[in-house]
Amino acid sequence: MERWDMLELTFDGKTDGNPFTDYEIYGTFTNENETKTVEGFYNGNGRYIVRFMPSFEGEYHYRIYGSFSDKEFEEDFTVTAPSENNHGPVRVSNTYHFSYADGTPYYLVGTTCYVWHIQSEQLKEQTLKSLEKAGFNKIRFCVFPKHYDYNFGEPPCYPFEGTPVDSSTITSENFSQFNGDPEGNNWDFSRFNPEYFRNIERCITELQKLGIEADIIIFHPYDRWGFSMMDMESDMRYLKYLTARLSAYRNVWWSLANEYDLLSAKTAEHWETFGNYLMNNDPYDHLRSIHNCVNFYDHTRPWITHCSIQRHEIFMTNEYREKYNKPIVLDEIAYEGNIQYGWGNITGEEMLRRFWEGALRGGYPGHGETYLGYDNVLWWSHGGELHGESHKRVKFLHEIMLQTPCNGLKLGNRDWDCVCGFPQDDDVAERTGYCIFYFSIMQPLFRDFYLDDDNEYIVEVIDTWEMTITEIGIFKGKFRVPLAGKQYMAVRVRKTDKQNGQVLQ
Amino acid sequence: MERWDMLELTFDGKTDGNPFTDYEIYGTFTNENETKTVEGFYNGNGRYIVRFMPSFEGEYHYRIYGSFSDKEFEEDFTVTAPSENNHGPVRVSNTYHFSYADGTPYYLVGTTCYVWHIQSEQLKEQTLKSLEKAGFNKIRFCVFPKHYDYNFGEPPCYPFEGTPVDSSTITSENFSQFNGDPEGNNWDFSRFNPEYFRNIERCITELQKLGIEADIIIFHPYDRWGFSMMDMESDMRYLKYLTARLSAYRNVWWSLANEYDLLSAKTAEHWETFGNYLMNNDPYDHLRSIHNCVNFYDHTRPWITHCSIQRHEIFMTNEYREKYNKPIVLDEIAYEGNIQYGWGNITGEEMLRRFWEGALRGGYPGHGETYLGYDNVLWWSHGGELHGESHKRVKFLHEIMLQTPCNGLKLGNRDWDCVCGFPQDDDVAERTGYCIFYFSIMQPLFRDFYLDDDNEYIVEVIDTWEMTITEIGIFKGKFRVPLAGKQYMAVRVRKTDKQNGQVLQ
Repeated sequence: MERWDMLELTFDGKTDGNPFTDYEIYGTFTNENETKTVEGFYNGNGRYIVRFMPSFEGEYHYRIYGSFSDKEFEEDFTVTAPSENNHGPVRVSNTYHFSYADGTPYYLVGTTCYVWHIQSEQLKEQTLKSLEKAGFNKIRFCVFPKHYDYNFGEPPCYPFEGTPVDSSTITSENFSQFNGDPEGNNWDFSRFNPEYFRNIERCITELQKLGIEADIIIFHPYDRWGFSMMDMESDMRYLKYLTARLSAYRNVWWSLANEYDLLSAKTAEHWETFGNYLMNNDPYDHLRSIHNCVNFYDHTRPWITHCSIQRHEIFMTNEYREKYNKPIVLDEIAYEGNIQYGWGNITGEEMLRRFWEGALRGGYPGHGETYLGYDNVLWWSHGGELHGESHKRVKFLHEIMLQTPCNGLKLGNRDWDCVCGFPQDDDVAERTGYCIFYFSIMQPLFRDFYLDDDNEYIVEVIDTWEMTITEIGIFKGKFRVPLAGKQYMAVRVRKTDKQNGQVLQ
Repeated sequence: MERWDMLELTFDGKTDGNPFTDYEIYGTFTNENETKTVEGFYNGNGRYIVRFMPSFEGEYHYRIYGSFSDKEFEEDFTVTAPSENNHGPVRVSNTYHFSYADGTPYYLVGTTCYVWHIQSEQLKEQTLKSLEKAGFNKIRFCVFPKHYDYNFGEPPCYPFEGTPVDSSTITSENFSQFNGDPEGNNWDFSRFNPEYFRNIERCITELQKLGIEADIIIFHPYDRWGFSMMDMESDMRYLKYLTARLSAYRNVWWSLANEYDLLSAKTAEHWETFGNYLMNNDPYDHLRSIHNCVNFYDHTRPWITHCSIQRHEIFMTNEYREKYNKPIVLDEIAYEGNIQYGWGNITGEEMLRRFWEGALRGGYPGHGETYLGYDNVLWWSHGGELHGESHKRVKFLHEIMLQTPCNGLKLGNRDWDCVCGFPQDDDVAERTGYCIFYFSIMQPLFRDFYLDDDNEYIVEVIDTWEMTITEIGIFKGKFRVPLAGKQYMAVRVRKTDKQNGQVLQ
C-alpha cells in the first residue's frame, strides 16, 4: 500500500448482544515516525473492521485488540511512496489557504449535492462524470437523507435499524408538516445499518479516484426521520461510528452541520462537544468546520480549522479573513438556477462573478445549481447533469489560481473600483509583481495603469466568461489596456526578467 | 401672472464704484396671506433686478427700495391661479418623500449633466429634448465650469470679471496638475459677469417649461479657475448673488456642493455657514442638501431638507431613512457607461436595478450616463443624446410610482429574498394591500404567494426591462405567479373590492 491510502483490516468477532455498542476494536499502528491507535467498528454479519491511513512511508507494524475478540492480531506491512495523483489529505496552509499533505497547493473549487449518494446508481455515475468534467475538487454532501422541497423520496436504505414515517402523502404543499421527528418513525439508534455507510464509503472512494474531497455533513435540519433530534447519547454513538468508519479516507472533510442554527434541538454545548470530539478522535486531523444559515458559528473556536460560511455578500470575504484568521470557504453563495427561493435563482454570470470575486479576495466560493425542468432532478440535492453556465468556467478559474506564485491570493488595497488579487506572501507579491485586476459587472472600454517606472510587466487580458487569456504586451510606466466594454473582464500583470523576458517566479 | 411664477422687476440705478457690492436693492411684497422682503441684484449696464415668486393668489402690492436709487417704486399686481402644469415648488412631504406645493406627489427620477448649460446652443437644445423624451424630472448641474477628464474646454464666458489660466496644454495625462487654483487665473471676485448667470437662468426656465427641477450645485471641486478656493468673503458674496438671482424660480433646488469632502479649502464651518445662509436667505425655502464623495455630511443638520447621497450600495437606502428621517436622494449610484472609472461603467440593466431597488426601498436614485464613442460628448457632463438603455425605462418606473396609493413607498420587512415596496402609510398599505415584490437580478421561474385568506388580490407581473404589465388574475389564499425565469421581474398585488372587482384605493 502507498502512503495516505487506506489499509482496511477485517476480523470476525462477537455477535451476541448488540455488537455496535457492546464491543470495542482498536488498532495500534507503529512505524519509526508515528504510533497511532485508532478505533474500529462493527460492520455487521459478525465482521469487525479497523481502518488506517499511514502518514509515512516505510515499515509499519499493527496490533489489533479489544473486547470484540478473545484474540489479538499482529502483522508487519510496508508503505510505499504515494503515486502521482495521491497528495495526501488537505491541510490548512499559509493561514488562509490549503495545501495537500505533500505540500502541493490545493485551490478549492467546490460544489454541493446534498444527497447524491442515495440516488440511483445511474444518477450517481452521472454525478461523478459531471464533477470530473467540470473540474470540481470538493463536494459537500450529507450523511443523512434530506427532507425538503424537491426532496421527498426515500433513500434505498437507512442509517439505523428500524422503519420510517409514512411518506406517501408528502407534497410541496405539506412537507413542512413532517419536519423534525413526526409520529411514525421507529428507529433503534443503537444499531447502525452498515450498508448505509458502505454506500457512502463507495462514494468517497469514487471521489478520491477523481481527486475530489468529500466534505461530509454530519448533521442537518432538513429531516423527517428524527435524525436531527436524537438524544446526546445517540449523537455521540453516531459520531464515534462515523469517525471510526471514515477517518482513514484521505479525502474526507468534516462539516459538523449544514445550517447548524436551524437545528432546533441542538445547543452551543452540543456543537462544542461534537467539535471537540472530532478534533480529539479523528486520528488524522481532517479539516473541520460548521456551516450557518443566518448566524455565523464562532469560527475562532480551536476545533474549527476553516470557516464554512453561507453568505451572498462576497465583498465581505476579506473582512472574514481578518476576523477569523482562517481559510474562508464560502459554502453557499446562492445557487445558479431558476427555482423560486432567493438562494436558488442567480444567473451563471452572477455565480461566476461571485467565484472570481471570492477567489481574488482570498477566499474559496462554492458552486451549486438549482435548475428546474429536468424531471425534478436538481444538482443541489441529487447531482446528475449540470445545466447551467458557471460550472463550465470553473476549470478555467482553477487553472488561473494554480498559477499563483505562492500558496494563495489576498485582496490588495490598491484600487477602490476593481478587485485586486495579490499573492498572499508580500515578498512574493513584491518580487513577482503578480496581480489580477478584476472588473466584475463593470464594462470599461479600457483601463489605464501605472504600476511603477522601473519594472517591465507582461500584461494579459482575461475574459473570465469566454475563458480566454490574451497577452497584450510588455509594458513599463503608464500603459493602457483595452477591455472591450464587456463585463467580467480581468487584467493580469506579472514582472518579467529584464535579461530574458521571462515571468518572474 | 400666476401663482408660483416669477415676477421680474427691472430698475435703473447707480453705476459708480462697484454696483455689485456698493449698493443694495430690496423688494417687499405683500398680500393678505404673506409679506416677503427679498433681495435684488445688479444685472450690469446700470440695471437692477428684483425677482419674486408669489405663494398665494390674489392682490399683491410691492415696494422697491434700497441704496441703488434715490427713488422708491410701488405698484399693485394680481396673481391668478396656477395653470395646469404649474404645481409650485417641490417640498418634503410624508417625511421621506416629496410633493409639489399644491399637494401633487412628486416622484423624483433625476439625472446629472454637470455643465450642460455652458455647452453649445445646439447641444443644450439636444439635452432638453433628451430630458423630455426620457421623462426625467430633475437634473443636477453646477454653477461653475468643470475641470476633469473629458472636461478641459472653456465655458463661453465666466462667472466673474477677469481671465482664466491658459488651458491650451491640458490633456487627459496632465489635467490634475491644473487642479485648484494654478498660477495664471486673474479674477475680480467682487464683480460678477451677469451674462454667465443669465445663461443659467435661461436653462432653468427651459427646464421649468418641461416640468424639470433644477438641482443647482453651488460649489464643486473639479476646478482649475480657483472658484473652489475663494476666500470666505467672496464665497458669501457669491451665495448672496446666486440666491438673489435664482430663488424666485420655483423649480430650483440647492445642492450646496458636489462631493463636498473633496473641496480641500472648505471646512465644516464653511458648510454650516453656507447652509444656514441658504436656509435664512432663500425667501422660498427651496430644498437644500449637500452631496458627498466618501464621507456623508451630517444629514441631521436642520438646514438640510433631504439627503443627497453618493453611494452604490442601494440596499442601504432604508437604513439611511431610519438614520436621517429625511428623503433619501441617491444622487450618484454610478453611471451607465463604459469609461474606465469604476463609478462610470455599469450596464443599463444594473442602473435600472439600482433604480427599482432604491425606489422600492423608499428612496430616489439618480441616473447618469458616461458612454465614450460620441465625440467625447458624455451625458454626465455635457448632456446631448442618451446612448444607454436605462434611460428608456425611467418613464415606466415613474408611471408605476405615480400609481402608489399614498405619497411614497417604503421597504416592507416581508421576504428576505426580494425587495418588497409597500405604501409609506401603514393604514393605506393595510387598506389597499398594495405591494410590489421585486426580484432584481434573480431569475425565478415562478413564485408562490400566500398573502391572506380573506382578501382577493389583483396580481400583475411587471417586466421592468421590457416595460410590460401583465395582469394574471385575481387570487385569494395561496397562488402561483409565473415569472418566466427572467431577471428584473416584479409582481404587484392590490386588494380588490369584493362587490365590483375594482382595485381598492
